[in-house]
Amino acid sequence: MLTVNAITATSATEPLVRGTVERRDLGPRDVLIEIRYAGICHSDIHTVRGEWGEVPYPLTVGHEIVGVVTEVGGQVSKHAVGDRAGVGCMVNSCRECANCQAGQEQYCTTGNIGTYADVDRDGTVTQGGYSTHVVVDEDFVLRVPESIPYEKAAPLLCAGITTYSPLSHWNAGPGRKVAVVGMGGLGHMAVKFAVAMGAEVTVLSQTLGKKDDGLAFGAADYQATRDAATFEALANRFDLIINTVSAPIDVEAYLGLLRLDGTLVSVGAPPEPLPVQVFALFGNRRSFAGSSIGSIAETQEMLDFCAERGIAPEVEVIDAGQVNEAYERVLSSDVRYRFVIDVDSLR
Amino acid sequence: MLTVNAITATSATEPLVRGTVERRDLGPRDVLIEIRYAGICHSDIHTVRGEWGEVPYPLTVGHEIVGVVTEVGGQVSKHAVGDRAGVGCMVNSCRECANCQAGQEQYCTTGNIGTYADVDRDGTVTQGGYSTHVVVDEDFVLRVPESIPYEKAAPLLCAGITTYSPLSHWNAGPGRKVAVVGMGGLGHMAVKFAVAMGAEVTVLSQTLGKKDDGLAFGAADYQATRDAATFEALANRFDLIINTVSAPIDVEAYLGLLRLDGTLVSVGAPPEPLPVQVFALFGNRRSFAGSSIGSIAETQEMLDFCAERGIAPEVEVIDAGQVNEAYERVLSSDVRYRFVIDVDSLR
Repeated sequence: MLTVNAITATSATEPLVRGTVERRDLGPRDVLIEIRYAGICHSDIHTVRGEWGEVPYPLTVGHEIVGVVTEVGGQVSKHAVGDRAGVGCMVNSCRECANCQAGQEQYCTTGNIGTYADVDRDGTVTQGGYSTHVVVDEDFVLRVPESIPYEKAAPLLCAGITTYSPLSHWNAGPGRKVAVVGMGGLGHMAVKFAVAMGAEVTVLSQTLGKKDDGLAFGAADYQATRDAATFEALANRFDLIINTVSAPIDVEAYLGLLRLDGTLVSVGAPPEPLPVQVFALFGNRRSFAGSSIGSIAETQEMLDFCAERGIAPEVEVIDAGQVNEAYERVLSSDVRYRFVIDVDSLR
Repeated sequence: MLTVNAITATSATEPLVRGTVERRDLGPRDVLIEIRYAGICHSDIHTVRGEWGEVPYPLTVGHEIVGVVTEVGGQVSKHAVGDRAGVGCMVNSCRECANCQAGQEQYCTTGNIGTYADVDRDGTVTQGGYSTHVVVDEDFVLRVPESIPYEKAAPLLCAGITTYSPLSHWNAGPGRKVAVVGMGGLGHMAVKFAVAMGAEVTVLSQTLGKKDDGLAFGAADYQATRDAATFEALANRFDLIINTVSAPIDVEAYLGLLRLDGTLVSVGAPPEPLPVQVFALFGNRRSFAGSSIGSIAETQEMLDFCAERGIAPEVEVIDAGQVNEAYERVLSSDVRYRFVIDVDSLR
């Protein structure tokens, strides 16, 4: 057992504090990663504040993890000491259900094992990446290409794959009109990916505050959703809309923006159900879908795509002592576009 | 102008009565059809009772129309006097929008012109098929194959195409597991089509009252939705669910029955929005979609498919004087499976 420094939540209401977590002894197929950077995802905040259900405090969150392999188990074949490594939102799955067998372990029928706040195979609670080290089964460890700086690689493990996967699945590409709802950590990556895939991209954000950035990322258009005229002007326009906003949205209004056979895909969601007017689905044979991260294989594909195409998130690097402040800034959308914790500040 | 006998609604609350409707003089591209049979669709009832919005009384409904061509305009090339002809839910469209140009005129961006209660190009209110004759643009008239009896052809024009189109679009076929929700006029056709396409079909009905019929139509399984155990036993099972029920359904419960990349398609819908738990869409990357009838070309394809494969609806033929009683029986699900009015009784 390895006791390592971490940033820990002790309750839903108190600030995060410095603490420790315990990492299991390396099993034959485990990899020990010395963490360099960990991204801050909105999910981390929902979780530690108890907004998504009961929390096994004390808890360390973080599922955008990059570092270097410092030790491997005796049967590890995919990773070696010194490798640049990444860990995303899951650290295991049942490996036996139809979805796992199909290489879509993120949809494991018994539930994949989340990187934090989940129960690991050994019965312990998983602890996330706001810490100096992590031990993970080699099958759930990604190779981080040399050309992606560590701090920029971190957000790819959640914000990156969560947007890349639906864009790829629903065929964002040349000749396709794609809208991205929300210009935050996920949204800005969705814009970069969809542009790189060849789609014509429109950003739909509450205001035009980040319009210059959106256009710089390659978007062809940028419209404010606070302006009702936007929904008239863009009616029946898009093949695909990626909604990255986890607050409730007016589903009917966004469905109205879809052309024939268009799909609205949510990758963010509020805990409460959203009202859906089925007649809005009848028009243009529209679909409302959900997408959850991506498989390990697809995450590797996404990392390699980023390396080849020079795609990376915009990040603001902070020290461990700034995490609580960073949470407040995430909640007020005051970050361009992802906070990443420099884990050296925890050693 | 031709004044013809019809069954007419005079208000939302009074019984239908015998009346007349006026049919326009034949234009150069119009076809005059002497109607033989007209099916009774649940939509007819929703419409005449004012449940779907304002109604231009007096109104004659009916959009499952079959008969024989008795006169054609000078430029008509697709139909000839003596042909067996059908008319479904629409009688025109703009022909200029992207969807019309793509041959998907049912999704006409300005709205296709409905067979009844809509405004025709000449400014008059369209009147439906519970009448002895109808005049329709030749492009919206179907050819009814000889091998399908007139009275069995009628329900194909709405119940048939409404279920055939989504089954075809979402690839019901060999190796695919399809569930049909509801065993009424639409549902029983969905079962027959999905079986003919090669899918493994499960009927999900409130009770097991029509189980023998469902199995006789080729379903492999038939389960009662009133039994909560059904939703556990069939979790993560189906590639495609066709919901034919227009009353509100528990969307989350049905989404739970979809396997990876499965789609729940509603062809029936209540006027009020349905609550959708977006987290239920995340699991298995599920979609909730809508589908509205089918194009004229696809309706012809469906009629030809029925002729080739010997597929036809189960009908109960009634006289004009039985329509009000039939409406009550439709509302209490007491029909196997579609009422069809023998229009000779109106002459």
